Amino acid sequence: MAKSTLALSPNSKKPPQPPQGEQPQPPQQPPQPQGGEQQRTRLQRDRACLLKAVSYFAGDMPAFAKWMEKRFIVLQILDWCLRGAAQVMFVNNPLSGAVIFAGLILQNYWWALNGFVGTLFSTLGAMMFCQSRGAIAAGLYGYNGILVGLLMAVFSAAGDWYWWLLLPNAFWSTMCPLLSSALASINSRWDLPVFTLPFNILVCVHMVSTGHFNHHFPQVLIQPRSELPNITWSEIDLPQLFWSIPVGVGQVYGCDNPWTGIIFIISLFISSPITCVHAVLGSAAGMASGLALSAPFGDIYFGLWGYNCVLACIAIGGMFYALTWQVHLLAICCAFFCAFLGSGIANIMSAFGLPACTWPFCLSALTFLQMTTQCEAIFKLPLSQVTYPEKNLAWYWRHKKQQRRDKEAKEKEEKEEEKEAQQRALEDQVLEKEMLKVDMEQMAEERRSGMSSPDEGVMLEEEESAGECTDVYVAQNI
Amino acid sequence: MAKSTLALSPNSKKPPQPPQGEQPQPPQQPPQPQGGEQQRTRLQRDRACLLKAVSYFAGDMPAFAKWMEKRFIVLQILDWCLRGAAQVMFVNNPLSGAVIFAGLILQNYWWALNGFVGTLFSTLGAMMFCQSRGAIAAGLYGYNGILVGLLMAVFSAAGDWYWWLLLPNAFWSTMCPLLSSALASINSRWDLPVFTLPFNILVCVHMVSTGHFNHHFPQVLIQPRSELPNITWSEIDLPQLFWSIPVGVGQVYGCDNPWTGIIFIISLFISSPITCVHAVLGSAAGMASGLALSAPFGDIYFGLWGYNCVLACIAIGGMFYALTWQVHLLAICCAFFCAFLGSGIANIMSAFGLPACTWPFCLSALTFLQMTTQCEAIFKLPLSQVTYPEKNLAWYWRHKKQQRRDKEAKEKEEKEEEKEAQQRALEDQVLEKEMLKVDMEQMAEERRSGMSSPDEGVMLEEEESAGECTDVYVAQNI
Amino acid sequence: MAKSTLALSPNSKKPPQPPQGEQPQPPQQPPQPQGGEQQRTRLQRDRACLLKAVSYFAGDMPAFAKWMEKRFIVLQILDWCLRGAAQVMFVNNPLSGAVIFAGLILQNYWWALNGFVGTLFSTLGAMMFCQSRGAIAAGLYGYNGILVGLLMAVFSAAGDWYWWLLLPNAFWSTMCPLLSSALASINSRWDLPVFTLPFNILVCVHMVSTGHFNHHFPQVLIQPRSELPNITWSEIDLPQLFWSIPVGVGQVYGCDNPWTGIIFIISLFISSPITCVHAVLGSAAGMASGLALSAPFGDIYFGLWGYNCVLACIAIGGMFYALTWQVHLLAICCAFFCAFLGSGIANIMSAFGLPACTWPFCLSALTFLQMTTQCEAIFKLPLSQVTYPEKNLAWYWRHKKQQRRDKEAKEKEEKEEEKEAQQRALEDQVLEKEMLKVDMEQMAEERRSGMSSPDEGVMLEEEESAGECTDVYVAQNI
Repeated sequence: MAKSTLALSPNSKKPPQPPQGEQPQPPQQPPQPQGGEQQRTRLQRDRACLLKAVSYFAGDMPAFAKWMEKRFIVLQILDWCLRGAAQVMFVNNPLSGAVIFAGLILQNYWWALNGFVGTLFSTLGAMMFCQSRGAIAAGLYGYNGILVGLLMAVFSAAGDWYWWLLLPNAFWSTMCPLLSSALASINSRWDLPVFTLPFNILVCVHMVSTGHFNHHFPQVLIQPRSELPNITWSEIDLPQLFWSIPVGVGQVYGCDNPWTGIIFIISLFISSPITCVHAVLGSAAGMASGLALSAPFGDIYFGLWGYNCVLACIAIGGMFYALTWQVHLLAICCAFFCAFLGSGIANIMSAFGLPACTWPFCLSALTFLQMTTQCEAIFKLPLSQVTYPEKNLAWYWRHKKQQRRDKEAKEKEEKEEEKEAQQRALEDQVLEKEMLKVDMEQMAEERRSGMSSPDEGVMLEEEESAGECTDVYVAQNI
Repeated sequence: MAKSTLALSPNSKKPPQPPQGEQPQPPQQPPQPQGGEQQRTRLQRDRACLLKAVSYFAGDMPAFAKWMEKRFIVLQILDWCLRGAAQVMFVNNPLSGAVIFAGLILQNYWWALNGFVGTLFSTLGAMMFCQSRGAIAAGLYGYNGILVGLLMAVFSAAGDWYWWLLLPNAFWSTMCPLLSSALASINSRWDLPVFTLPFNILVCVHMVSTGHFNHHFPQVLIQPRSELPNITWSEIDLPQLFWSIPVGVGQVYGCDNPWTGIIFIISLFISSPITCVHAVLGSAAGMASGLALSAPFGDIYFGLWGYNCVLACIAIGGMFYALTWQVHLLAICCAFFCAFLGSGIANIMSAFGLPACTWPFCLSALTFLQMTTQCEAIFKLPLSQVTYPEKNLAWYWRHKKQQRRDKEAKEKEEKEEEKEAQQRALEDQVLEKEMLKVDMEQMAEERRSGMSSPDEGVMLEEEESAGECTDVYVAQNI
Repeated sequence: MAKSTLALSPNSKKPPQPPQGEQPQPPQQPPQPQGGEQQRTRLQRDRACLLKAVSYFAGDMPAFAKWMEKRFIVLQILDWCLRGAAQVMFVNNPLSGAVIFAGLILQNYWWALNGFVGTLFSTLGAMMFCQSRGAIAAGLYGYNGILVGLLMAVFSAAGDWYWWLLLPNAFWSTMCPLLSSALASINSRWDLPVFTLPFNILVCVHMVSTGHFNHHFPQVLIQPRSELPNITWSEIDLPQLFWSIPVGVGQVYGCDNPWTGIIFIISLFISSPITCVHAVLGSAAGMASGLALSAPFGDIYFGLWGYNCVLACIAIGGMFYALTWQVHLLAICCAFFCAFLGSGIANIMSAFGLPACTWPFCLSALTFLQMTTQCEAIFKLPLSQVTYPEKNLAWYWRHKKQQRRDKEAKEKEEKEEEKEAQQRALEDQVLEKEMLKVDMEQMAEERRSGMSSPDEGVMLEEEESAGECTDVYVAQNI
């Protein structure tokens, strides 16, 4: 194992791209007893090797997590922070996290620093508040922190490198795990995740508690629309419209650089191709919704219509539901719902000088997860089984197979029991008939011999006492 | 059964008016063994006939629903849509639904069309999302759809016959069942209905996501009050104040035509007179509240103070609570609460350019249903038993009688058991005393004969077997 | 007992100050068998006497409550109202309540009258809605009423002695118990209290349903900040900053008179010194937060930054958590969180012309109580055990001791059981071996005598015993 983990470089910026569709399969290869088809066997062995190699840096990198357990605590915290950075997109993978930090650095040094401070304090806060070690190690207490840090820097009107900002950043990031824990104890009643609700609440509280007119921590000025936007459909810029898709992915972290968005897409692909596809689809759906509601083109180009849909589409499309084609359609439907809801929330929150944050994503995804249906193809995974779409799918298939097998076994048993019951019934009938015959013969004989039963009640009592005798025997044997 | 259903004309616009107070009784008539009072018997038979006839078009028309089950699916969907239209007022009756659509057509063709499209897509959506067939057939997935369709048309600033509006109408209506299902899985934890919450959420999302300043789907301009309204109490128009009562009922569907309101009142009377009375009382309470808070007369005349109170008063007054005089007072209290809350919500939502929709009704009715009390006369029906006030009342009376009977039976049993236990205790004492006597005599004899007990263990075993003997006696006595 | 209760004067304005830290101990004094140390014994006896005397007017005055049970109902209701007035600060003590009313009278007669009307109608409403008598007697249905009454008077723009205000005051106060009951049936799912949520909701509904521009019930004009406040740090007034601490405590009841605040602090000290300390700490934390966010000095002097923190710090610091030093830090942390949240909520609500009320306290305290942690020092008391910090602490210590004792007893039992099991196993082995020997001897004998098994049944039994032998081997190998 040591060798294989050494082969893995968690900071390598150029991730090898696994062939899509092969990765989700569990790396169990049945033995091949046929000796003749050597060619095929070798191919399969190569494939197995490749799958194993892929499993070292794709998915949630369990081997690396295991190896990390014995390292120095500072290294471990670094691992948790990287996983936390990627968990914004539901990805539990330190390599993706490192790539995401690279994207952030490409966008803006100061923002990246704030993001890192947020992740760090959030993770330390979770340790301080004695939260579950497993959840911390999966980065589940880091993703709200990175968003709090980043977005506080993004929306600050005090300019970059205003060092005082690190103070509220550290305070609110430390509060993240507390709020996550509080919200989780509500949402867990319905087996729902907390998503980025703690981030939404804390960034909104920070922004609205200071506001634009503040000496210490002024925020950028956001105001509601008060006149018809000037939209000329002939002026639409198609290439920029296309670029709005990666920008939308980048805006999940508040970044408007398309290359940063592309780096984020790559980081998703490393861990889970299904997630990556849904992220792109979500961003496209958001862009389409913006056009449908005749939003100002600037907003669409800037990715403001996309980022919520990216997250909503990932969450529904294979992350918390097992991916079937019905669920795929549901995810796209959720992306559109999320886009319209997002526009509404943005308009409402602008009345308080607030951005929409990721409220639209949280509310729409929670709604779509809360739905109940009698349709079997829409299967909500138990929250404890959620990992990443490919593994979820494997779990779902195994679960379904198991259920089918159980059902068949039960049916078989029932059939056999029925058969036995029929046979027994037949035997009983035969026995009864014979006994009746014997009884009747006896009665006939008795009549002939002139003996009449003196009292039926006595007979019954005798039978009963015989029964009691048996009971006594049974009791003594016990 | 075929004959009786043929006698029923679901589209007849002139409903026969059942004598109020008789209808709620279940149509079970005890046999009349007294042969002498022929006159009275004939009267009772006539009354039973009338009740049966009334049950074919009043209440929830179960005979019609059963007959419909075997019809063509399109006809069934039409039935569900009509029931959905009436379910806004908690009425599960296709005849009432048809009358309501007639009222809508009287008000505005375009609105009626939008309402129908909303109901249809909402019902189809429920089938698409595999919701419970029983709930769909009761129209429970249609009433949010009709409101979404109607109110989107009412609040659209693009004018009537703007055909593009049917697109968002169909989209949001299809989302209704999804949202209903999601909210139901929260509210069912407290055995609460979802009321019109899905409609409120979706219409608000649609309106605020586009807003007044939009090229595709502009909304009417709603702004908060910013100066003292000009109110001269001498200018009050009493006839118009009276007309505001049916207008308030009409405003449940967004209609300001008083005749439409009167048609709606008639449609309520067809299904359930109790509902009808509470609707009128609610509208009056709303009007009075408006005067108490010195609202502009225009708003009161326009029915804006009434429609929420109509719904709240119906919901509390016999629909979800069993109707007693305490519940009747509670319903009127809820109507006033709802009116004040409504004014508050309208003022808040006007800051975002939104109307109050039926948020005030939902929040006040949920609050009044969520209350717990030790008062026995305020009995909240289990959600699964809720049908319509008259049937609810019958169920409540049966339930109460059953409870009393159970209690009496239990008390009787307890008394008898006590008596038996006393007797048995007496017998046991006598038996014990005799056995003791026998034992002592035996021991005295043994002493005399010089035999001493060789082993205590044997003694104990003998005692135990004696105990077993007693058990056998007891068992035989039972 | 009669003597001791007579010694207690519930209306005495000059409460004796119990030595801090002694009061929480339960008044159980173990017998002192050592006769020699007379001096120490006398001291202890004196201390016990003092503790008993203190228990008559401190804490929740259980002796007085018991004595009151047999008095005239009007006197009882007065007791409940006084307890209700103090319950705003979580204090269940009629003496504190009386002192608080004295403070209110010092501030403003009209406000005090409105507060009393609110408490009275709220308590009567709870009786009308058949709420639990125990909760009513603890004042739990009065504290929302007093706040509703007071704050409606405080925020009314119609001036003092506008008698019509008593009408909505009575209506909304009567609604308080209904709303409390409804919210409790939600919050009880997570074992959370309702705090002052009913007051917040009802006062906001009243204020926003009428608004500033109203003929009958105009409210004071509250508007959002629209320019940079003029803050010169050199102009800060340190004595006034210090006075803002008692003013912050006074603002819990809407009072800006520092002497009223000091009276309130005294009333807290009567019942529970821990509560008193946390109230002062909370107010100081709020003041510091105001400076940190560069709030206008006027707001800080006026106590607007303090009152929510006072309540939050009391609630977390020993009231709903058992007081340890970790919980003490958590309480201070909660006070800061509450202050920032309060600023945010005030900014949002000012957009609707509303004050922040105690929303920030409710939301922050609920969040901090909802948090789950694996840290044993942060122990959330079951809601049914919450009384006052000192008694809570005593309960917690007893509970902890009991748990430790149970654990030890269990461990001891397990050890003994293990020992017994080992001995029994040894005995069984010896027995088995002997039986095996006997069996084998018998078999050997049988073989010698040439006897073959006449029946298969016997064979089977032998096989079974052989199987058992194998089992024994297996068990021994394990």
